[in-house]
Amino acid sequence: MRTFECDYTEGAHPKILSALTETNMEQMSGYGFDPYTARAAEKIKAACNAPDATVTFLVGGTQTNMIAIDLLLAPFEGVIAPKTGHINVHEAGAIEFTGHKVLALPEHDGVLDVDALEAYLRTFYADATHEHMVRPGLVYLTHPTEYGTLYTKAQMRRVRALCDAYGMKLYADGARLGYALGCPENDLSLSDLAALCDAFSIGGTKLGLLCGEAVVFTREAPKMLLSQIKRHGGLLAKGRVLGVQFDTMFTDGLYESIGKEAIRHAKRIRSILLEKGYPLAWESPTNQQFILLSDAEAERLRTHVGFDFWGRWDEGRWIVRFTSSWSTTDADVDELRNTLPERAALLQ
Amino acid sequence: MRTFECDYTEGAHPKILSALTETNMEQMSGYGFDPYTARAAEKIKAACNAPDATVTFLVGGTQTNMIAIDLLLAPFEGVIAPKTGHINVHEAGAIEFTGHKVLALPEHDGVLDVDALEAYLRTFYADATHEHMVRPGLVYLTHPTEYGTLYTKAQMRRVRALCDAYGMKLYADGARLGYALGCPENDLSLSDLAALCDAFSIGGTKLGLLCGEAVVFTREAPKMLLSQIKRHGGLLAKGRVLGVQFDTMFTDGLYESIGKEAIRHAKRIRSILLEKGYPLAWESPTNQQFILLSDAEAERLRTHVGFDFWGRWDEGRWIVRFTSSWSTTDADVDELRNTLPERAALLQ
Amino acid sequence: MRTFECDYTEGAHPKILSALTETNMEQMSGYGFDPYTARAAEKIKAACNAPDATVTFLVGGTQTNMIAIDLLLAPFEGVIAPKTGHINVHEAGAIEFTGHKVLALPEHDGVLDVDALEAYLRTFYADATHEHMVRPGLVYLTHPTEYGTLYTKAQMRRVRALCDAYGMKLYADGARLGYALGCPENDLSLSDLAALCDAFSIGGTKLGLLCGEAVVFTREAPKMLLSQIKRHGGLLAKGRVLGVQFDTMFTDGLYESIGKEAIRHAKRIRSILLEKGYPLAWESPTNQQFILLSDAEAERLRTHVGFDFWGRWDEGRWIVRFTSSWSTTDADVDELRNTLPERAALLQ
Amino acid sequence: MRTFECDYTEGAHPKILSALTETNMEQMSGYGFDPYTARAAEKIKAACNAPDATVTFLVGGTQTNMIAIDLLLAPFEGVIAPKTGHINVHEAGAIEFTGHKVLALPEHDGVLDVDALEAYLRTFYADATHEHMVRPGLVYLTHPTEYGTLYTKAQMRRVRALCDAYGMKLYADGARLGYALGCPENDLSLSDLAALCDAFSIGGTKLGLLCGEAVVFTREAPKMLLSQIKRHGGLLAKGRVLGVQFDTMFTDGLYESIGKEAIRHAKRIRSILLEKGYPLAWESPTNQQFILLSDAEAERLRTHVGFDFWGRWDEGRWIVRFTSSWSTTDADVDELRNTLPERAALLQ
Repeated sequence: MRTFECDYTEGAHPKILSALTETNMEQMSGYGFDPYTARAAEKIKAACNAPDATVTFLVGGTQTNMIAIDLLLAPFEGVIAPKTGHINVHEAGAIEFTGHKVLALPEHDGVLDVDALEAYLRTFYADATHEHMVRPGLVYLTHPTEYGTLYTKAQMRRVRALCDAYGMKLYADGARLGYALGCPENDLSLSDLAALCDAFSIGGTKLGLLCGEAVVFTREAPKMLLSQIKRHGGLLAKGRVLGVQFDTMFTDGLYESIGKEAIRHAKRIRSILLEKGYPLAWESPTNQQFILLSDAEAERLRTHVGFDFWGRWDEGRWIVRFTSSWSTTDADVDELRNTLPERAALLQ
Repeated sequence: MRTFECDYTEGAHPKILSALTETNMEQMSGYGFDPYTARAAEKIKAACNAPDATVTFLVGGTQTNMIAIDLLLAPFEGVIAPKTGHINVHEAGAIEFTGHKVLALPEHDGVLDVDALEAYLRTFYADATHEHMVRPGLVYLTHPTEYGTLYTKAQMRRVRALCDAYGMKLYADGARLGYALGCPENDLSLSDLAALCDAFSIGGTKLGLLCGEAVVFTREAPKMLLSQIKRHGGLLAKGRVLGVQFDTMFTDGLYESIGKEAIRHAKRIRSILLEKGYPLAWESPTNQQFILLSDAEAERLRTHVGFDFWGRWDEGRWIVRFTSSWSTTDADVDELRNTLPERAALLQ
Repeated sequence: MRTFECDYTEGAHPKILSALTETNMEQMSGYGFDPYTARAAEKIKAACNAPDATVTFLVGGTQTNMIAIDLLLAPFEGVIAPKTGHINVHEAGAIEFTGHKVLALPEHDGVLDVDALEAYLRTFYADATHEHMVRPGLVYLTHPTEYGTLYTKAQMRRVRALCDAYGMKLYADGARLGYALGCPENDLSLSDLAALCDAFSIGGTKLGLLCGEAVVFTREAPKMLLSQIKRHGGLLAKGRVLGVQFDTMFTDGLYESIGKEAIRHAKRIRSILLEKGYPLAWESPTNQQFILLSDAEAERLRTHVGFDFWGRWDEGRWIVRFTSSWSTTDADVDELRNTLPERAALLQ
Repeated sequence: MRTFECDYTEGAHPKILSALTETNMEQMSGYGFDPYTARAAEKIKAACNAPDATVTFLVGGTQTNMIAIDLLLAPFEGVIAPKTGHINVHEAGAIEFTGHKVLALPEHDGVLDVDALEAYLRTFYADATHEHMVRPGLVYLTHPTEYGTLYTKAQMRRVRALCDAYGMKLYADGARLGYALGCPENDLSLSDLAALCDAFSIGGTKLGLLCGEAVVFTREAPKMLLSQIKRHGGLLAKGRVLGVQFDTMFTDGLYESIGKEAIRHAKRIRSILLEKGYPLAWESPTNQQFILLSDAEAERLRTHVGFDFWGRWDEGRWIVRFTSSWSTTDADVDELRNTLPERAALLQ
């Protein structure tokens, strides 16, 4: 049976793989100087309504955050992130590897507490010793968050206003952005992100690419971009691999349809979980659904279906994650409905 | 009138200055290869009851923490610190500059919450994804803390036990260590620190040197120490300047007497503050005394006496600091008693 | 017409692409915890006769050098490289980004001058101030070199002996290693490299993978390998993409046959160039052939055939490169023979 | 007898020590916010005829180069230096520690070969792959050089012109600058340096301070200077120690007279060496004089007088250094004349 463990358990969406196969023997220049990469960049700029943006393509998510953030910051600046943000917890110190401090602030189910951000900034600059502290140069957000939750446009605007007021930039990590865009609850379009952020990423890996993340720099184009990417070990010799994939992804609405379909499946998964008596850990409108299980329940349930032991809720309980993705089918979800036991039956 | 703003407002203790003057025209090798530096190291090892320790001398406090911590950690490890720890707040990101994450944990008046430390470590290693996180390689403490408070020997032993259990090292920042040692409330001797820590610093700058901090590596001697210090920009050409000062400091009990005298003055300052109706922000047994003042009170008080606007307590109140040091005299404290208005009279 | 510009102008070898396609919808764990990655590692260890080695897979060449070298060195050590070595010239400072100095030494057509290495080491340690200099901790070599030339086993043994004598490690960058192994002139097998080096890479990108380099650590396994790779931004979420490709590459002698075939084509290209009167810049036994052309000749020739303006020989002449690869066919080389003008005719 | 080993074997010039003593008990703000530091900066700006410059004070020479260069460069840029430059050889990799490559170019007796610089830059930008290489962002020079030699104003102007032409900055390391300024052969004044360089240092340690180097930023003021210095571990708590010393040094011509006197002594030392038959390794107009001795001669000579085994000339010969400084007296040089044996007598 299919596992619902995460959204990168398969290879690539069939259309992506076909495009790689069809273009395979074309000879192209390396390092992104191929026509597919150029076309992909153009399509993304059009989708973002940002004709003056600079779009570049990188291989992985941590690499993308590391490079984008290092390029956006002055060497002596730090990056504000929600305490649960990916860069603060799950990137093995890649941001600090580039010399920057992550300034962790309170959040709620993964969403940065904007009041706390405002208070932090006011206090920081009121402190006469703030030149002895790390100057916040950037706010980092994930959309959707690590908890599957979403920022509202109103929240993002408030964050942007604070960035403007305090001389900071704004960067959104969109590793799962397609699953936000596919959500009816989401009110932040690509154009909104382009208008509000100095840069944001459009994740491909979790949306059906073999690998690949696009980064959109909407305001100032980074200097010596190729050189800087190479210096961070992020330059791909066969840049076409990213170009062809993203070109396909942004053709004929593939990116949008992948997001929408996965969300449709996620909503069904949510219903099934609730119907069978499983309590949601919190409300997530996107492709990740989180429930709470006792240790014993979790152990029993894993004999029936594949999921992710996402983290600890407390000493006796797990947060367990079910994820839909580009590869999820109606048959998969039907099978889940059939095999998932009632929660009440789990411990009998 | 004397200001009680901080403990580094003057130059050097007269005995230190005399020693520099007396030895001034002696020709000596550079980079710490002079007899005074060797003698200072021997005296410190004797004072610490640590004959096998490696003692080195650096110029400043942030430099000392940056170098010691970078040398104690593997490149991919992070350092645990109380949230209010100097390296987490007031070193402008020097630790991250060397590539390490500061893992901030809860504290109480500057003292690391050891229960929180234990819970953090248990949770960290219970998390299946912990290889994606920054491995804690070291615990950083200050003694006394930034709040003037002290660790008990029992607390330090518990921290050490956790370090042993989880394969971590322990480092104590002793920028004001002499003021802890001079306290009747303190039960951690130099020998205790040497026995419990992998390394700790003995601050000279705040105890009456022009500049200078000693670092005691009690267990493994760092490889290529001179080279590593130079690589961090911390090697002093005229190493004698540090050697002569520390040699003097550890001769005839000067370091101890400086600490004791300053604490005697601090206790008097505390009494005067209480007698005149000023509320302590918290209990500090060491040379820094903290009181709470409304904004208006603080503004008025500064016309009478010099102190430090240490930080904000809340929107309307300041934490204000009075500090004694090696340079404080009985006459200074008498004058404080005479000039400090009653708090009740401040706003009349 | 086909360009002979470089060995990464196409996508992937058809067998590699097939394997990716066939395994595409299998669900696997991420980050290299899939069966194909495990199998690829086993096959490489077998091919290297190094059952105790640690094999890991990375995406790109600069990334591979950056990570391998940073993991092999102590933070304060530098890496010796031939002056023309890739890490010294063409990696945009990625080694320095990780804090290490590249210590450049003389070379001949890309091959490190071992006499110069020996003299450097003797002089270094004879200098009383060597602790003020960067300690050499590693020798970096490329095999084949950037000039297409090869180390002999005797040379490599001498380098190894110097590494042993001076407490250094040895790392070979094998971005094009398969093209060395396919050469009759080469006397260094995978087993030899495993026996002589502390680590070496087996490049996939230039041998017919979409992307991917294997790193073989033959002696000490790096600590916290996954974590360190992630910290450098090098961890691939869908590790399977590398695992499946390398598993295929090391099945049924694909890696060997790709190398041999490309060398067969390179020898023919060399003959054609010589027959038509083009002077070799130097002798290269591997898949890259270098000739000298005046500026005017080069401009004219490019209207006939695709090649690489590799670099300047002197003010008036270019070094021009023709490269064979896994994708070169007999028909390609036949076409080259047919379309390449006689050099004498170029400027008429 | 006095050793002529180097120019930092004693403590501080008596006037410097007096100034420290006289101001010792004045209470001042820390971190350079004291009146002496402000005054020292003003005096240096006046001496440099650079009223808009930013002057800051650091503790040591390597620290000064590390911080100034890191602040002048973009993170991805490298620094050009003569192959023998201090940052390339004797700073234990401090520049690479901050992530920058040192691009070493040919020199003659320590003076950068400006023709080689020009050729390098032309070749660099003619290379189509130069974005894969480290962009040169700064030229680093020492004046006087490590060999005691001097740049001419004409040479410096040519370097400046190349910097302008290729978008680079210019930085001069003046660790021994005072000894250049005291030379009749020198034609580069402080004003010239200020006009030609983006930044330069004025070394105090070797000119008679306990420690301390001034850095003059003549064009753009670095952002967040205090914060950046602290991040590099270079901020001194008692900034007064540097301020008082430099204020004294730039009062009543002390800096100039120290330089002139030491050069007068150096010229006498040179005459004595020549008279007694010792061959100069090369001509040095400044305070360091270099002669060549066979190993046996050097061993014998050291029983008579103190000097520095500066480096190897070849297998059988040492380069030996005699240095004058602020602390050299006529009596010292007279004694040298009396005790130095004729070279011809050395091996009898």
